[in-house]
Amino acid sequence: ADLAAGKAAFDKYTCASCHGADAKTSVMASYPVLAGQHEDYLRHALGAYKRGASGAPATANIRKNAIMGAMVAQLSPADIANIAAWLSSLPSPLAVRK
Amino acid sequence: ADLAAGKAAFDKYTCASCHGADAKTSVMASYPVLAGQHEDYLRHALGAYKRGASGAPATANIRKNAIMGAMVAQLSPADIANIAAWLSSLPSPLAVRK
Repeated sequence: ADLAAGKAAFDKYTCASCHGADAKTSVMASYPVLAGQHEDYLRHALGAYKRGASGAPATANIRKNAIMGAMVAQLSPADIANIAAWLSSLPSPLAVRK
Repeated sequence: ADLAAGKAAFDKYTCASCHGADAKTSVMASYPVLAGQHEDYLRHALGAYKRGASGAPATANIRKNAIMGAMVAQLSPADIANIAAWLSSLPSPLAVRK
């Protein structure tokens, strides 16, 4: 995966509007911290939103979400891999909270 | 929410089997880090799995996942609130990674 392309895609698709430019200061607490999360999990989650948005049957491993469904519909598999890799590489402030 | 009850529920429902006893060393990288995640988001995610498992229509905000669906089916609304609060309160090592 290409970390720089991941950051570019994160910017291009305006992910920061909800998740914050640093992917850790989301605008609402009902939106997750992404910085430092496992790359594999992020890729899984984005794929599940994509399957949910594309009308996949309600079998295992889909997510239906109006916002994220619309966002990921624009992403190619390479975008998803690059975004997940870049987010996973980011430092996260969570440990500072305590 | 009751943090001690949240920890007790995390233990009782064997969440640690996949997510790790500290909720940050998951057994597979396709399972997320939970420690330090936003409480509201964790509550949302658990609720979405619960709606998905209960045969809710494929409208917005459901998650279909065989593992998590079976897990959350056992949880009461109070369990979900307590678990989310406890997980959110945990320190997370993510910042140490860089």
